[in-house]
Parts: sequence; structure tokens; C-alpha cells
Amino acid sequence: MARTGRRPAGSGTRDAILAAARAAFAEHGYEGATIRGIAERAAVDPALVLHYFKSKQRMFVAAMEFPFDPSEIVERVLSGDPERAGEQLIRFFLSVWDDEQARAPLFAMIRSAVSHEEAAEMLRQFITEALVARVASGLHVPHASLRPPLVGSQIVGLIFMRYIVKLEPLASLPADDVVAAIAPSVQRYLTGDLGLG
Amino acid sequence: MARTGRRPAGSGTRDAILAAARAAFAEHGYEGATIRGIAERAAVDPALVLHYFKSKQRMFVAAMEFPFDPSEIVERVLSGDPERAGEQLIRFFLSVWDDEQARAPLFAMIRSAVSHEEAAEMLRQFITEALVARVASGLHVPHASLRPPLVGSQIVGLIFMRYIVKLEPLASLPADDVVAAIAPSVQRYLTGDLGLG
Repeated sequence: MARTGRRPAGSGTRDAILAAARAAFAEHGYEGATIRGIAERAAVDPALVLHYFKSKQRMFVAAMEFPFDPSEIVERVLSGDPERAGEQLIRFFLSVWDDEQARAPLFAMIRSAVSHEEAAEMLRQFITEALVARVASGLHVPHASLRPPLVGSQIVGLIFMRYIVKLEPLASLPADDVVAAIAPSVQRYLTGDLGLG
Repeated sequence: MARTGRRPAGSGTRDAILAAARAAFAEHGYEGATIRGIAERAAVDPALVLHYFKSKQRMFVAAMEFPFDPSEIVERVLSGDPERAGEQLIRFFLSVWDDEQARAPLFAMIRSAVSHEEAAEMLRQFITEALVARVASGLHVPHASLRPPLVGSQIVGLIFMRYIVKLEPLASLPADDVVAAIAPSVQRYLTGDLGLG
């Protein structure tokens, strides 16, 4: 190992890879960053990066300290009753955002996307690859690729009004009432008629 | 005039009042800032402040360089066909946000609200006084005070996804298609059944 200057697998190695990943995503964006480049930056073998994180997408989720893996949520929602997918999604997001610790990294990402063009671009690339393509192929409805951005718009807006601006009475509304009010919109975006012919 | 150290009415005076208003809003928030305090800060008579801006609410709109007066939009929407209010609102916001110059100050305000607790609080107070109370008294439907935050959540989220993250295909979707997709949700938030009993 000393010969190549490479780091062995071990407790500090995962953190070193994550630090390298954050630097690579910041420098090259989501699309531009590569497993090979991140491995080089962390002075480890690319196979070790894959051993820890399986894919670039999962490494991004870990590097950004997301409290959940968005693609797992997509799987869960797509595999359940399609007519209750909107409700499930809103319930899931409320459970994350009503937890102060869980929401911190998501809030940081929204703040960063609003302030920095590059962060917005990185988020765009990640959402496109991790969510839009997957949802679009899993939903057997017209205009499938438009649906994730529509769902995202309602969820991010809910987050802004309820948790950032804290506008009453929405900010203090019990989660069940938020679900009753918002889920039908999300359901329509997921499986309903979008009025686009 | 020289005796009281007060500024006369004139071309530079309006700007001086606006600068004083921005400082006062930043320091005391929307609720805490007063016409009297702003007049004092700008070294003018409070009557002159009212002459230029009519109300604190309008002064805020001018100080923040909003491209429109939100309360005028509310009047327009409330005075039209209630069943087309959602469509009108979305059309209006798209026309503002599709104009790069018009959207700049709104974008600055969103960025500021996401980054600074005090700015979020100021926005919350302004929306509550200028929009929520007015819409709630103009809409003759149950849960009237919850409706503006719900509408706001969908509009801000649309702005985030279409203009900030620029997620395709939503970012390039023609305005008419955005209206077709989003307006029914906004209409339901304004006048429809929110499922709250």
C-alpha cells in the first residue's frame, strides 16, 4: 500500500472518500464528478469507493448527508398503491421535515441552491438522474417526465411556507390536515390528468 | 425647514425615505417599523411619508422594489370570476417570472428569506398583513386563512423548480401548459374542498 501512496480500507477512509466526494461535486458538478476522480482525490482504489457507496448517486446522498435516499423513497412509492402515492409522499416528507435534525441537511441544500448557481445545477442534475428518469419509467401515464418536477414544486413550496417562512395557520397545522389539503394535488401530478391533451 | 433640520419634499426625498424604510424594516422587522420612525430616520415629516406611499404596506412594496403590489393582485383576483381565480393567479406569476428584470427583486427576497431568519420573519409578517387577512375576508369559503399559505406554497415551489433549479421539462414548458398543469391545484386551494371537514 505504501508503494502506491494509497490509503487502506478503515475507519477514516470512508470519511476521506466523503470529503473527496464533496470537493469533487463542488468542483465538477454532479454529472462531471467521477468515481475514479473521487478515488484519486481520496488516494484510495476506485473499487473501495464502490465497496462503500455502490454508486455515484448513493455517494452523493451520503456526501450531502441526506436523511434518506431519494431513490428508495421512489421505489417505495412506485411499488405501493398508485392511487395513494401522493398521500404517502407527503406523509414521508412531513415526517422528515417535522424532525429538526433530519431536515438540517435538506435545508442547507435548498439554501445553497437558492444562493449559488452551481449548487442549483448540481441539484438539478441529481434530481434528473436519481428521480425524474426513475419515476418516468415507473409511472405508466402520459407526460411522465413532467410529473416529478410538478410534485417537487408542491413539496418544496410546502417546505418553504411551513418550515422557512412559517406562515400560519399552515406552520402549525397538524400533519394529517396538511396531508388532506396537499395530497390531492400531489396525486394529480403523479397519476392524474394534467390537462395537456 | 432649516429650523427643524427636516428635508423638503423633492426629487431626492422619496429615495431618502425608501433608504430609511429599508433600514427600518431590516432593523425592526415589518411589524416593528413605523411610519413615524421611518420619517425620523429620513429627516422628513411623517405626513410627507404618507403623501408619497399612502401606507406602510405600500412603502414596503416600494422599498423591496416589488414589480407589482401584491394587494392589487389580490383585489383583481377577488373581483373576477372565482372559478377562474387559480388560472389568473398562475398566469400573472408566470408573466412576472418570465420577465428577467421583473423577477430579480422577488428572487432576491426569496434568497434572503431562505438565508436569514429575520428576512423570513419580515416576509411572513408582510404576507400575513397584506395578503392573508385580505384574502381570508374576501373569500367566502371555509378555512379561508389557510388558503393563501397553500396557494403561496404552490407558487413559490413552481418558481423554485422552474426558475431556480430549472428542472426540465418544467423549465421550458410553454406558459399555457404550466397553467393547465398547475392552475387546478391553485383553484382547489382557493375555493375547493380541502378535505378538512
